[in-house]
Amino acid sequence: MTSQTIAPPPTIGVFDSGFGGLTVLRSLVRRMPRARYAFLGDTARLPYGSKSRRTIARYAAESAQFLVREQGAQFLVIACNTASALALDAIQDAVPVPVLGVIEPGATAAHAASKTGDVLVIATDATVQSHAYAAACLARGLRALEKACPLLVPLVEEGWTNHPVTAEVIRIYLDELTADAAAQGLNPDALVLGCTHYPLLRPLIERAVPAGMAVIDSAESAAEAAVRLVNGQLAPGAGGVGEPATIIRCFATDSVEKFERLGSRFLERPVGQVDLVDLGG
Amino acid sequence: MTSQTIAPPPTIGVFDSGFGGLTVLRSLVRRMPRARYAFLGDTARLPYGSKSRRTIARYAAESAQFLVREQGAQFLVIACNTASALALDAIQDAVPVPVLGVIEPGATAAHAASKTGDVLVIATDATVQSHAYAAACLARGLRALEKACPLLVPLVEEGWTNHPVTAEVIRIYLDELTADAAAQGLNPDALVLGCTHYPLLRPLIERAVPAGMAVIDSAESAAEAAVRLVNGQLAPGAGGVGEPATIIRCFATDSVEKFERLGSRFLERPVGQVDLVDLGG
Repeated sequence: MTSQTIAPPPTIGVFDSGFGGLTVLRSLVRRMPRARYAFLGDTARLPYGSKSRRTIARYAAESAQFLVREQGAQFLVIACNTASALALDAIQDAVPVPVLGVIEPGATAAHAASKTGDVLVIATDATVQSHAYAAACLARGLRALEKACPLLVPLVEEGWTNHPVTAEVIRIYLDELTADAAAQGLNPDALVLGCTHYPLLRPLIERAVPAGMAVIDSAESAAEAAVRLVNGQLAPGAGGVGEPATIIRCFATDSVEKFERLGSRFLERPVGQVDLVDLGG
Repeated sequence: MTSQTIAPPPTIGVFDSGFGGLTVLRSLVRRMPRARYAFLGDTARLPYGSKSRRTIARYAAESAQFLVREQGAQFLVIACNTASALALDAIQDAVPVPVLGVIEPGATAAHAASKTGDVLVIATDATVQSHAYAAACLARGLRALEKACPLLVPLVEEGWTNHPVTAEVIRIYLDELTADAAAQGLNPDALVLGCTHYPLLRPLIERAVPAGMAVIDSAESAAEAAVRLVNGQLAPGAGGVGEPATIIRCFATDSVEKFERLGSRFLERPVGQVDLVDLGG
């Protein structure tokens, strides 16, 4: 033992309505291995996409408070497109720590990648209906065309991430989207993956996009932004000294079995035991 | 006008967690056009499949009470496999009218159709995990092999009911299921469609099953059983006199837009206005 003082690693809370946000946690762990992570999937109350903004804001605020008050999170990453689109303000009001969503970092990365200023976004129906990506792109001077791809989440959850059927579904969706873009006079050169399930389809999507089109993974972009935020606010030395020691605890409000069974595919490591928490109605 | 007294038509309540149960309503209307129907989709709280038995029982009982107390239903058809599997008793305890689920009629129809005594069941993950069809088949002396087909509901909701991708997914699922059956020494000659979305895929499924295999639609079987029940309890003359006059009112607890947009495909007629009802948390 040396007498050197090692600052404690930061505690990062990661929140999703389901467990797709584990892809954001995976990206965080890659970039910031020496940290404590608490992940909460509000699986009892998903899908958020079919619920009202007020209901989503209440659910997300309760979940954020659990991560901060019960798990000591010093930073929160909202790894859920619907909650990021509809409840980021409510979450920021509900907890006294910095909060980051997935949509703004995705739009920022699209802005950095696009030369033409025209981008495509694929996401769930709920995210597309919120037009949150289009608004965030527009704020950066980009024109964005969004498309809902409702079959992609079930295909990922079925485990068909490298399956000919999935490749065909992706081809159909992207053909429709690029035809719509051409019909509107757009010349897109970037595609944003606006759903936390889609990183698992990235190899198939990379093969399906036209040559020269950048694929932007909003999970990766959010993790990059989070690392900058954490490093900017930590005491010097925290997180940087000692062996990498990643501590991950996962919580769910229901469906622990499915979370444990599928979660490791998203996280690319065992999720271990998932603890059940009750956040009420 | 004649002076003949026409008995009022019966009022039938039909309940589902979503709007897939509209296929059961469609089958009811075909068989019993002169009736009032009140359909409730508890869309705010779906999917039931990921929730505990106690929670499902509470939701289903509240929904049943709305149909009986507010809409005057004299008979209830539970057009939801999960609620039929996990909450039929709770619903029967909650309301003073006859209640019929979809699982027992499906198993009865399989028993009537199968000569070998071996049957296959395809359904959602939640229904398969409940093993309600296997139990109902076993009670009739049948051996049943169940398979979850989680991609079929999203394919129906995407509108791909006559699409090559859907045909391929059905082929893959049925190949796996018949291979599993053969490995277990079963000789199945009937396939039960154990999900209210699947009747929309019946043409593709009929083409995919081996020659000589009967396809049993549990929505049709439930409607047949309901008509027998209603006719057995009605005052003579009720429902049988006068021009067919079908009255349908649809209610949902959320997501009225999606219900109105997709519902007519399931019902094979316009669903009209869907009224929002609030059953609480």
